[in-house]
Amino acid sequence: MPDAVPQRLVYLGPEGTFAEQALRTLPVSATASVAPVRSVPEALDAVRAGTADAALVPLENSIGGAEGVTLDELANGDPLVIIREVVLAVDFVLGARPGTSLDAIITVAAHPNAARQCRGWLREHLPTATVVEVLSNGAAAVGAAQGEFDAAICAPIGAERHRLSVLAKEIADHADAMTRFALVSRPGPPPPPTGNDGTTLAVYIAHDRVGALLAVLTELAVRGVNLTRIESRPTGERLGRYAFFLDCSGHVAEARMGEALQGLRRVSSEVRFLGSYPRAASGFSPEDAASAPPGASDADFEASAAWLARLRSGSHS
Amino acid sequence: MPDAVPQRLVYLGPEGTFAEQALRTLPVSATASVAPVRSVPEALDAVRAGTADAALVPLENSIGGAEGVTLDELANGDPLVIIREVVLAVDFVLGARPGTSLDAIITVAAHPNAARQCRGWLREHLPTATVVEVLSNGAAAVGAAQGEFDAAICAPIGAERHRLSVLAKEIADHADAMTRFALVSRPGPPPPPTGNDGTTLAVYIAHDRVGALLAVLTELAVRGVNLTRIESRPTGERLGRYAFFLDCSGHVAEARMGEALQGLRRVSSEVRFLGSYPRAASGFSPEDAASAPPGASDADFEASAAWLARLRSGSHS
Amino acid sequence: MPDAVPQRLVYLGPEGTFAEQALRTLPVSATASVAPVRSVPEALDAVRAGTADAALVPLENSIGGAEGVTLDELANGDPLVIIREVVLAVDFVLGARPGTSLDAIITVAAHPNAARQCRGWLREHLPTATVVEVLSNGAAAVGAAQGEFDAAICAPIGAERHRLSVLAKEIADHADAMTRFALVSRPGPPPPPTGNDGTTLAVYIAHDRVGALLAVLTELAVRGVNLTRIESRPTGERLGRYAFFLDCSGHVAEARMGEALQGLRRVSSEVRFLGSYPRAASGFSPEDAASAPPGASDADFEASAAWLARLRSGSHS
Amino acid sequence: MPDAVPQRLVYLGPEGTFAEQALRTLPVSATASVAPVRSVPEALDAVRAGTADAALVPLENSIGGAEGVTLDELANGDPLVIIREVVLAVDFVLGARPGTSLDAIITVAAHPNAARQCRGWLREHLPTATVVEVLSNGAAAVGAAQGEFDAAICAPIGAERHRLSVLAKEIADHADAMTRFALVSRPGPPPPPTGNDGTTLAVYIAHDRVGALLAVLTELAVRGVNLTRIESRPTGERLGRYAFFLDCSGHVAEARMGEALQGLRRVSSEVRFLGSYPRAASGFSPEDAASAPPGASDADFEASAAWLARLRSGSHS
Repeated sequence: MPDAVPQRLVYLGPEGTFAEQALRTLPVSATASVAPVRSVPEALDAVRAGTADAALVPLENSIGGAEGVTLDELANGDPLVIIREVVLAVDFVLGARPGTSLDAIITVAAHPNAARQCRGWLREHLPTATVVEVLSNGAAAVGAAQGEFDAAICAPIGAERHRLSVLAKEIADHADAMTRFALVSRPGPPPPPTGNDGTTLAVYIAHDRVGALLAVLTELAVRGVNLTRIESRPTGERLGRYAFFLDCSGHVAEARMGEALQGLRRVSSEVRFLGSYPRAASGFSPEDAASAPPGASDADFEASAAWLARLRSGSHS
Repeated sequence: MPDAVPQRLVYLGPEGTFAEQALRTLPVSATASVAPVRSVPEALDAVRAGTADAALVPLENSIGGAEGVTLDELANGDPLVIIREVVLAVDFVLGARPGTSLDAIITVAAHPNAARQCRGWLREHLPTATVVEVLSNGAAAVGAAQGEFDAAICAPIGAERHRLSVLAKEIADHADAMTRFALVSRPGPPPPPTGNDGTTLAVYIAHDRVGALLAVLTELAVRGVNLTRIESRPTGERLGRYAFFLDCSGHVAEARMGEALQGLRRVSSEVRFLGSYPRAASGFSPEDAASAPPGASDADFEASAAWLARLRSGSHS
Repeated sequence: MPDAVPQRLVYLGPEGTFAEQALRTLPVSATASVAPVRSVPEALDAVRAGTADAALVPLENSIGGAEGVTLDELANGDPLVIIREVVLAVDFVLGARPGTSLDAIITVAAHPNAARQCRGWLREHLPTATVVEVLSNGAAAVGAAQGEFDAAICAPIGAERHRLSVLAKEIADHADAMTRFALVSRPGPPPPPTGNDGTTLAVYIAHDRVGALLAVLTELAVRGVNLTRIESRPTGERLGRYAFFLDCSGHVAEARMGEALQGLRRVSSEVRFLGSYPRAASGFSPEDAASAPPGASDADFEASAAWLARLRSGSHS
Repeated sequence: MPDAVPQRLVYLGPEGTFAEQALRTLPVSATASVAPVRSVPEALDAVRAGTADAALVPLENSIGGAEGVTLDELANGDPLVIIREVVLAVDFVLGARPGTSLDAIITVAAHPNAARQCRGWLREHLPTATVVEVLSNGAAAVGAAQGEFDAAICAPIGAERHRLSVLAKEIADHADAMTRFALVSRPGPPPPPTGNDGTTLAVYIAHDRVGALLAVLTELAVRGVNLTRIESRPTGERLGRYAFFLDCSGHVAEARMGEALQGLRRVSSEVRFLGSYPRAASGFSPEDAASAPPGASDADFEASAAWLARLRSGSHS
């Protein structure tokens, strides 16, 4: 996405899921056109093709882990970058057609992940109800609205969209479950640093030896760049080639991140820059990870560069 | 699982999926009772409760990444250990009722992951067919067998089980996609070393700093223990506490692994040992990762221990 | 030196130098025979040959640095070990025949190092005197006693031995200059740990690459062993082979030191153990270096070993 | 020393020692004024005061180790830099007045270090002669020339200067003993890179922990800067503060060295740059240490900087 504000947004559908709810938290969603698409590859391909300016897709879920599809789609094909992170509490609700009471519920539609995350609540409050698995949180809400099921486990926005009454809120067993989404666009100047930014990278190493990963992490550590997440994935193309997805604290415009990126570029077989973006305030990254450690601020880098210039010119007497 | 051969096995159902197919590759499946269960938590809870001796559950998929549920369930609750690794090529087939020809197919049932992995093949060979998403590969086969859909993308075992004709084999776009399963039991003496073993660990560190992860990896590297996979996951319990799931080459009975485990135990806030087991021959771990690097064999450790004993006794003159 | 108390001691002579003064601080010097020898090689060869039980030789001087001869002689030939460290403040005195007054002094005998260390004092108090360089502090005292020179810069024990009056004390420009000596014997059980011990090693690496040295230091750091001194020396035998002399905090009987030594043995082309011994209280090693860091005490190692034993036996349920 | 060729040189005297011999190997010695001084501090103070343009002083000896005085004098006071390294084989000769035959020699004058290094030769060829220790190799030659002793162990230049016949050449027991000298001047633009340069640094760390030293070495290793020598020295000023003298391969004008220096500046309490200079061809540094390792050449740094610039501008699509 170039400097301009994105006008055409897509998100992982269907309507009424957490992805749409996450998108609605962004001010840009009020002025842009917004459309659901059926899959992450479809969403990202629309951006690559220019039929959309940006796409909101899931990155990871605190319960289910990384969205492998998203990572793979970002790591391959034409370059894309993350320009915004959105973290959404996964606050499932139980929705039903208006007038339905809790003790009248016999069937509950739910995506398998949702059913699993609400297992404790269901056991306590609807011990005799049958859970029917469906393909998305949105589909569950649709099914309840159409009378196919008595109730649905869905996102708040799903209940609202399909005019369901909310019989219970925050029914997930883990109160603090969260999903992290990324707003992805075509490459362009990154959003300006805010002081609490994240940078995402895909780093490829030829061998999966612990030494190679140590070398990668050392490039970060030496420049005071902190790591908030790491995930290794075998690359499809051939055996023994690994990609590491790294989430780091800091912005590509900062000196420590810049030097670390250059170092990674020199020691890795490939580095793909997946964006620098404002971090969402959330439990995915502790707050103390945001600022540069002692000796690693931009001012520290400037001072050391000035000292080096004096050494090279011979004026350090 | 104690020394005895497991008599009662469960696997992630339904019948006719890759999990059952993986289980059937194990000789023990011929003599034990075998039953599908509905979810990974249910499978592992059955082992913990003693109603099953071992459970076959998915660990990771080369396309979709880690099975977060499995990792979380292994990391929490009563200890369980992996005693066997099974790696299965994800060779999707297109199945249909006998007599169905390819050009008569209008609807294809598929799990969303399966549909995505076969996108290219579908576009080329069934460009006008409609893909209907269902909840599992097994459900797709059932739907085709019952005439609900014209065909199903499923596992070979699913076609066989439901008496479908296989119209096309190996239709996944990535020919070498694989799923890695674990046979999990209650703690007991680990299977004896085979020379090509893996060890899985969950290591918790109090802070997500790159320095803490470097310390963990250094404990492995210094003893010559190689890492074949790493994944970080936020722990549900509180912010800023991370778990790293590590797959290493080697066996807990080996000296280098033993010393590395002790080191991890001293530097981490918690280490959970998730088993040492024979590695499946597969592309998940390069073959050269199996043997100890120079200076890290059991013989090397014995020689250095003998030397130390001489130093301590003063007999090194 | 075996368990017995050494009966025959030699030291780097001549009489009346700091080496003798250092030896006199050891209780054993009161009961043993004590004799000066002419050089460090001679002193160590006497121990090797069994004509002496122990030798006191200089290791390093806080002004002049390492005693290369001592290091080389310890690193080559039959093994020897340090059993005691003595640190002596280098408190030079100005000695003269009784009755000599300061303003009558025209010539001052001094070893070149002594003259250099007292340069400031001489400039201020004896600006017109001529310094005559001689071969040892002992020789300076002898020369003054025999009337060859008007005064001598020497050790307090040199003035006492040769019946010189001390005209000025502590005349060195650096008030806290110190020399570190080692009492060296044949190999035997090391002195028992005292809680503040040092261990000296010579580690050889095949190449002088920074990576090789990093590997050596990492073996120490990973076990919580602290380094108090490091010195690289080219080995005489062939080009590009380096020896590193390491002084560490801790005792070979301690678990962390034992594991670190074994690690060094595995990664280095050669390790020579040069002894574990009680540290002298002194400025050469900060006091906080003595105790094990968190997680590296003998109790921590025992706990982690017990945990590993449980894992290996399968009793960790 | 600024760009101009030094006109007034001093060296560690007296005349006829290896220091003078080393100086004579430099072309500049043919056109400049050359004068001996009595000590290293005097030599360096003359340069600081501007009464000399450069001074040749010893840095280390392959037998005796570092020259502590030189290191300390370089590390303190007004900054000075090494502009040239000279390595000289220590090829002692036995000199005597013309007409003296070997079997007529009863007394041999020698500096103690020289006597020690030639011990084997003396035992074999002059088993009954008495060695008389004197204060320098030059003084030994003078003594022999004046008839005070029958012969002298000295440098070839010492025999020549004092018109002694050389009765035997290369009489040191280690055939490849060498001394390394530095030509030192006031700060100015360093000599241009030659492709085989060295850089000398004094790095101070607040604590002597192995972790602090590891951090220092990692700054070098990460940028591909190789270390050819390391020596720790306690600083006189206060306890627990250590200086590390590092000799590295490479030139301050090179990118990898520049980035490493900046990193050291940020992590150390102080770094003193002691010069980049052409390396002497010698056994002190293996030849393969000279060139940048893979990924660390100036071209590699330029490529990674260009890549970073593209990322920052958003033009990496």
